[in-house]
Amino acid sequence: MERYDIAIIGTGPAGLSAAVTAAIRKKKILLVGSRDLSSKVQKAQEIQNYLGFPDISGAELGKAFEEHIDRMQVPIAEERVNLIYPMGDYFSLQVGQEICEAETVILATGVNFGKPLPGEEEFLGRGVSYCATCDAPLYRGATVAVIGYQKSEEAEADFLADIAEKVYYIPMYKEPVEVSEKITVVKEVPKEITGGMKADVLVTNENSYPVDCVFILRESVSPKNLVPGLQMDGNHVAVNLQMETNVPGCFACGDIAGRPYQYIKSAGQGNIAALSAVSYLDQKRRSQKSAKA
Amino acid sequence: MERYDIAIIGTGPAGLSAAVTAAIRKKKILLVGSRDLSSKVQKAQEIQNYLGFPDISGAELGKAFEEHIDRMQVPIAEERVNLIYPMGDYFSLQVGQEICEAETVILATGVNFGKPLPGEEEFLGRGVSYCATCDAPLYRGATVAVIGYQKSEEAEADFLADIAEKVYYIPMYKEPVEVSEKITVVKEVPKEITGGMKADVLVTNENSYPVDCVFILRESVSPKNLVPGLQMDGNHVAVNLQMETNVPGCFACGDIAGRPYQYIKSAGQGNIAALSAVSYLDQKRRSQKSAKA
Ligand SMILES: Cc1cc2nc3c(=O)[nH]c(=O)nc-3n(C[C@H](O)[C@H](O)[C@H](O)COP(=O)(O)OP(=O)(O)OC[C@H]3O[C@@H](n4cnc5c(N)ncnc54)[C@H](O)[C@@H]3O)c2cc1C
Ligand SMILES: Cc1cc2nc3c(=O)[nH]c(=O)nc-3n(C[C@H](O)[C@H](O)[C@H](O)COP(=O)(O)OP(=O)(O)OC[C@H]3O[C@@H](n4cnc5c(N)ncnc54)[C@H](O)[C@@H]3O)c2cc1C
Repeated sequence: MERYDIAIIGTGPAGLSAAVTAAIRKKKILLVGSRDLSSKVQKAQEIQNYLGFPDISGAELGKAFEEHIDRMQVPIAEERVNLIYPMGDYFSLQVGQEICEAETVILATGVNFGKPLPGEEEFLGRGVSYCATCDAPLYRGATVAVIGYQKSEEAEADFLADIAEKVYYIPMYKEPVEVSEKITVVKEVPKEITGGMKADVLVTNENSYPVDCVFILRESVSPKNLVPGLQMDGNHVAVNLQMETNVPGCFACGDIAGRPYQYIKSAGQGNIAALSAVSYLDQKRRSQKSAKA
Repeated sequence: MERYDIAIIGTGPAGLSAAVTAAIRKKKILLVGSRDLSSKVQKAQEIQNYLGFPDISGAELGKAFEEHIDRMQVPIAEERVNLIYPMGDYFSLQVGQEICEAETVILATGVNFGKPLPGEEEFLGRGVSYCATCDAPLYRGATVAVIGYQKSEEAEADFLADIAEKVYYIPMYKEPVEVSEKITVVKEVPKEITGGMKADVLVTNENSYPVDCVFILRESVSPKNLVPGLQMDGNHVAVNLQMETNVPGCFACGDIAGRPYQYIKSAGQGNIAALSAVSYLDQKRRSQKSAKA
């Protein structure tokens, strides 16, 4: 299996800046995120506080970032990372449907994960899942609900419809829904997940749906569910000035590492995180060498 | 006397980014430093890791920074700040020959202060001075030595020559020296400052000069001599993730706030420091209002 030096999760300013710095240091990089980069960059009308660009639109700044990443020849793997498991000496990452390995991880996932539904965290792994492609096989012939926070999740619902007996799809966005005819689209507001040993019922503002599993597909996953054992500080990953987390080899930067929520702050922290990952790798290799000698 | 909301010391990427962010927040800013910005920006041949500029020279990046600052209409006061005195509720700053006041201070002075000479810190304020314009009046008719780290210090030596009886000038740069005829130029390497209750002798690699004062004029001053009571972490100002120092209302960012030494990291921290200063000011005003009410 391919093992990367540095896996960078997220393609906002934090992840891209980390990628640029890591590329200059000639590390083998896995950069995972959207090829459209970050919606928080693309949607900004007018940006005045990114030093060097006196007045620029988000779309233009995004283009400048893209050119930079292209120049550095860092490809973007357009997937969602669903789980990052610390294996002691390296990390095992579930990237879309694939498993990858990396010696270090940089979390640059932003703060788009929203507030969990009542019951969501309680039943996570027991009838609540964040990943259709990972967990669908467990629900062959079953009844499931899919809460999709953006249109791109429709493909996940379609995938589930081929395996499960019945799929309810609850769209959390305004665009028109286009899913397989086998799916029941429910335009209601999810309120709670209830159950006993495992999740049994999705409660909305209008109805209760008995289900075997609720798939909650947001743009991103709360970091404490992404990396088991990761220490948080409220809604943010706890970091020090070197962007180190409590998990050795795991770094965080940008919005996910705390306020303020700003582009240049995120890019600056991405640069720090990449250099910290580089020195972590260097140190590890030095001690491996001296252990062999 | 003019009292500023935020005094920003230094015009490298950290100080400029702080100025841009503070200007957007409509604060009254004093930005002190060089109109050429930072020699560490201007001298870089090729910069590849400032996200958004795939490949740019230091001079070009400097021009982009300058345009940004001009657009924000933040003027640069081209002076050296020699002392920043915390007065409890505000700071008193010695800016060139003037005294200014500011409610908050952002240190963005870089790490150009070099290693002190043996004896320098011991005798500081007792026959060692960092500021000709401040301390010259104390040495009327006396013998002084001036160690100038850049050509611009020649003006300070000339100023001293009008007041002191005898001035030795030791240039620490390669450019030809052009000073008043009254000055004795000494092309030797300073090694030590010795004395008893106060500094008495400047020792070089070749001679010993009995003097009443040694003026040491570097591009910048070590932050612990700049702000009395400032807590250091080795050669850097100790800060937290919000760029707060131990002195309330005093923030630090960029190289002076620790490694890595990088442009985008410095700009990112400048942005954080400015927002922290803004919320410090807001909080202070809120509590003043509620005290009045
Ligand atoms: C409309 C708007 C205007 C703004 N204007 C300004 C402004 O003028 N100035 C300013 O400084 N800031 C502004 N901001 C704030 C700024 O957008 C954010 O601070 C910045 O984008 C944070 O960067 P980041 O890299 O940390 O995260 P983000 O930009 O949020 O990027 C995170 C990326 O990670 C991806 N991701 C998350 N989880 C996963 C996963 N599990 N697997 C794969 N990919 C994942 C996301 O899809 C996203 O692409 C604005 C924000 C908005 C919404
Ligand atoms: C040749 C060279 C190439 C480099 N290349 C790169 C690169 O490719 N990528 C990268 O990321 N980094 C690079 N760096 C590092 C980068 O230059 C620094 O990290 C960055 O400039 C630090 O920014 P700063 O704002 O903290 O401080 P500085 O840029 O050092 O600016 C500090 C400013 O404060 C002023 N100042 C100091 N004290 C006072 C005072 N008492 N009163 C008034 N003004 C004062 C100084 O005159 C100066 O203008 C390079 C450095 C050099 C020297």
